[in-house]
Amino acid sequence: MLTRMSSLFLRTLRDDPADAEVPSHKLLVRAGYVRRVAPGIYTWLPLGLKVLRAVEQIVREEMDAIGAQEIQLPALLPREPYEATGRWTEYGPNLFRLKDRKGGDYLLGPTHEELFTQVVKGEYSSYKDYPVVLYQIQNKYRDEARPRAGILRGREFLMKDSYSFDLTDEGLSESYAAHRAAYVKVFERLGLDYVVVAATSGAMGGSASEEFLAVAPTGEDTFVQSPGGYAANVEAVTTTAPPAIPLEGLPEAQAHHTPGTPTIESLVAFLNGAGLVDGEGRGREFTAADTLKNVLLKTRAPGATEWTLLGVGVPGDREVDMKRLEAALEPAEVALLDEADFARNAFLVKGYIGPVSLAANGVRYLVDPRVVTGSAWVTGADKPDHHVVDLVAGRDFTPDGTIEAADVREGDPAPDGSGPLSTARGIEIGHVFQLGRKYADAFALDALGPDSKPVRITMGSYGIGVSRLVAVIAEQNHDGSGLVWPAAVTPYDVHVVIAGKNEEIMTGGAALAAELEAAGLRVLLDDRKASPGVKFADAELIGVPTIVVAGRGLATGVIEVKDRRSGERVEVALSDAVAHLAGRVTG
Amino acid sequence: MLTRMSSLFLRTLRDDPADAEVPSHKLLVRAGYVRRVAPGIYTWLPLGLKVLRAVEQIVREEMDAIGAQEIQLPALLPREPYEATGRWTEYGPNLFRLKDRKGGDYLLGPTHEELFTQVVKGEYSSYKDYPVVLYQIQNKYRDEARPRAGILRGREFLMKDSYSFDLTDEGLSESYAAHRAAYVKVFERLGLDYVVVAATSGAMGGSASEEFLAVAPTGEDTFVQSPGGYAANVEAVTTTAPPAIPLEGLPEAQAHHTPGTPTIESLVAFLNGAGLVDGEGRGREFTAADTLKNVLLKTRAPGATEWTLLGVGVPGDREVDMKRLEAALEPAEVALLDEADFARNAFLVKGYIGPVSLAANGVRYLVDPRVVTGSAWVTGADKPDHHVVDLVAGRDFTPDGTIEAADVREGDPAPDGSGPLSTARGIEIGHVFQLGRKYADAFALDALGPDSKPVRITMGSYGIGVSRLVAVIAEQNHDGSGLVWPAAVTPYDVHVVIAGKNEEIMTGGAALAAELEAAGLRVLLDDRKASPGVKFADAELIGVPTIVVAGRGLATGVIEVKDRRSGERVEVALSDAVAHLAGRVTG
Repeated sequence: MLTRMSSLFLRTLRDDPADAEVPSHKLLVRAGYVRRVAPGIYTWLPLGLKVLRAVEQIVREEMDAIGAQEIQLPALLPREPYEATGRWTEYGPNLFRLKDRKGGDYLLGPTHEELFTQVVKGEYSSYKDYPVVLYQIQNKYRDEARPRAGILRGREFLMKDSYSFDLTDEGLSESYAAHRAAYVKVFERLGLDYVVVAATSGAMGGSASEEFLAVAPTGEDTFVQSPGGYAANVEAVTTTAPPAIPLEGLPEAQAHHTPGTPTIESLVAFLNGAGLVDGEGRGREFTAADTLKNVLLKTRAPGATEWTLLGVGVPGDREVDMKRLEAALEPAEVALLDEADFARNAFLVKGYIGPVSLAANGVRYLVDPRVVTGSAWVTGADKPDHHVVDLVAGRDFTPDGTIEAADVREGDPAPDGSGPLSTARGIEIGHVFQLGRKYADAFALDALGPDSKPVRITMGSYGIGVSRLVAVIAEQNHDGSGLVWPAAVTPYDVHVVIAGKNEEIMTGGAALAAELEAAGLRVLLDDRKASPGVKFADAELIGVPTIVVAGRGLATGVIEVKDRRSGERVEVALSDAVAHLAGRVTG
Repeated sequence: MLTRMSSLFLRTLRDDPADAEVPSHKLLVRAGYVRRVAPGIYTWLPLGLKVLRAVEQIVREEMDAIGAQEIQLPALLPREPYEATGRWTEYGPNLFRLKDRKGGDYLLGPTHEELFTQVVKGEYSSYKDYPVVLYQIQNKYRDEARPRAGILRGREFLMKDSYSFDLTDEGLSESYAAHRAAYVKVFERLGLDYVVVAATSGAMGGSASEEFLAVAPTGEDTFVQSPGGYAANVEAVTTTAPPAIPLEGLPEAQAHHTPGTPTIESLVAFLNGAGLVDGEGRGREFTAADTLKNVLLKTRAPGATEWTLLGVGVPGDREVDMKRLEAALEPAEVALLDEADFARNAFLVKGYIGPVSLAANGVRYLVDPRVVTGSAWVTGADKPDHHVVDLVAGRDFTPDGTIEAADVREGDPAPDGSGPLSTARGIEIGHVFQLGRKYADAFALDALGPDSKPVRITMGSYGIGVSRLVAVIAEQNHDGSGLVWPAAVTPYDVHVVIAGKNEEIMTGGAALAAELEAAGLRVLLDDRKASPGVKFADAELIGVPTIVVAGRGLATGVIEVKDRRSGERVEVALSDAVAHLAGRVTG
């Protein structure tokens, strides 16, 4: 059915919304695709809904193609299954919780591992039933601390989530590979510029995990790449530890009075000016990388009320990256110490904390992987204005383990030896996880094997942010004048602008639009009583890939066809118009 | 894509679910269409989702056909708009309310009048913009006191809700008529047996309102019909008042000692044996219809904490119908008095309450419309064991108004004089309302008129219970063996049963199924290693309209085609099978 702008529920805006920072947010609001209702909660107007449905359909087709079966779970869910896996608590304030009239606890589903596990357990019992892959395309709810960028990070958002159920680890690997391939197809069909990176599995549990990131300077995720093909979310980058150093013959640790050295920089300058010499009497040169910076934090397990102290040691030339640190400690909460914490723990000498007193006071201490046995460090001496030099790991202190907390830098070596890392930003558009047996264990999901013994099922979980993709596509497909939709998801194939108010142009333009519709194209007809200038600007803003101008040329049997992306214009004879435009759209 | 039952996520059940009472609930669960997650909250399994989507698509097509434009509002909504119209409170415990991490109040949308009004106000400003009709198909949430019958009355359910916005009352009438006609088309396409009845508008506000009820003995709604074409929800039936009677010459009211008359029946028997005579000395004959039964209730306005007493008087031959009474008093809550209420109000002589003491004590008193001026009644004398005879309305007591509280009976006259009423039961499947300006007033939704003066918009609101329709169709389309889907919504066109385990039958059946798919039919292939008996029973239960048996006949080039509804079977040559079946389906 031909859509006429004279009656379409669409009003474009001249100005960017006040709260918008990223291009997709500005343009989707200005072009009348979405409207804000509350923070992170949006209404889809007619054009936006069309794009959303197109994206959804592409995702559906690729899921169906790998034999995944579509079902639909509720969004309003009882507490019990999430209690069984601990996620009722682990999700913390990100979960929307509510009570029903009888006081029963409910939540709005943020992801559905528990329910899918229960659904499969309800239907299947024999090994012959497996494998199975189920999916749904459904509104999800997460009470984000910082909903941002319009539909890019919403609190109500459309997601495709699927779950694979296999008898064996090999089966899980196959299901995972099938999903990964399907995701590649989806994102290729959408024409996205994206990377697949190794990821941490976060609150989902499980082992292997990769993220699909759309490359975008406005992205919230930082990822790294190497010339040799390594790619990872920055949270997932592992640090290559240097080889351990034999302890024999290493110099003794020595405490030094180091007044006026509140920063690593001032400490290094002080030491280099202190005339320290090595075993052979040569003057020693220190850099920030020789220092060990100890950051004191507190962590709290989900549902716990007590905080526990944690010391983290990183080389002094690096900062602690809180996102990496938090990812490493998930699902525990992490916070910096406040004055009261220091007051309660008098052994913590602020600015001069060293591994020795942490150990003496039973504080868990995790270090950067570069802190290997035999490495010697300049670090706090647990005494005001004092540092210790040549404190050797594995001799003078023994950390409780390692942690990926230090920042990753442009030029760091890729962990697989494939060269130096470069960093870029992206937006997470898909995530594939090998969950393993975490959820099957929680609900005792077993299949009766051929030998009548139970086989614990192993699962995968796979998500695509469908509504977010609309924003991501806009983020990668726009210019100074507006949106530029790829053919795969455009709300219309052709935007016919009637440029002129005389009867002949009006009827000629409408007739052409009707012919195009009859030929199977989806046509947006601008039949409004507005100036051609307003109409052209709106057409650019709305972003239908092919714009047809029906104006004065109609009198001589000519229309103008403009390619929205390239800006290229051609004149086409009216008699060839349908064939020409049909060719563009299908071609 | 051909669906093979060997891998379809479907397990039929032998037994009815324990909580199921109505046929649709039993069959949709047994046949593997839906699964319960929590009270009134269900999962749609693959077959159920297909039927749901088919119903949704029919609704969408008919909405598009009347020029309604699809948008999608959030389900998670901020409190403020509902506060502005009072519905945050009025909805009472039926509303799912929750708080976000910042303590902001939210609700899960039960219906979206407020939000649609705001959406239109956000985009439109001039009279030239109107009229507009918008709709969405979306999960809605109501915390029903008694979720029942599976998906028939759920707490999370899929609904199509649309809203019309007009400049004039005539425009609203046209929008309303267009919706009504579209609804007729939807329900005709679904092949439903339904009626359109006059309805009360309930919590929605507004004036004209009709309900579409699917006729079903298991329905929760009672409706009445007359031979002359009157039809109404029983809550909406109005009582025809008899003409008033001149007061002159009516006998005096007289109190009588009437011991041992706890019931209307015993009171009538007592009076008929008491030797009362009329003015001319003739013995008087009383019936229950001569008595006035006063029922004491208490009501509470939405959000109020205090209850208010209310007396309701109905002829003694009728019962108070609580659903009619509640509809008449909506949105106020209604409850019967408890002992404490009687104790607090000593003037209420239980069993002998009369209009006189109600008036004396300032209790609001509403009566059945049959209690007209001049009508004389036997009623309570406000004294234990005493009744008064010939208490005349408009002389001895003056009610505060009338109320439709008495039950409606088979044989009562239709209010429009179209004959005696008969009653039946139905399930509400659609509802059309002329809301008028209630919501436009709440949000000051005005259009700037041609004379630059604001014109207040008038609205309509229209709903179809999409997920409920799946149950309703099942309710009207089943037999002792299972479901029988109409062609318009069947999950598959043809169910091919491979009846036999030898290689020839297996491959022959699969080849036939593939051919049918290639011809454009949607095929469910039962390729399981189960007995033909199990497969036939499942095919009957699942309810695909055409069942093909590929069995031993294949060897001689013959298949059996069974019509699920009629049970009729025909043998068809394999060579004609595709043409025959395609003909049946498009048929």
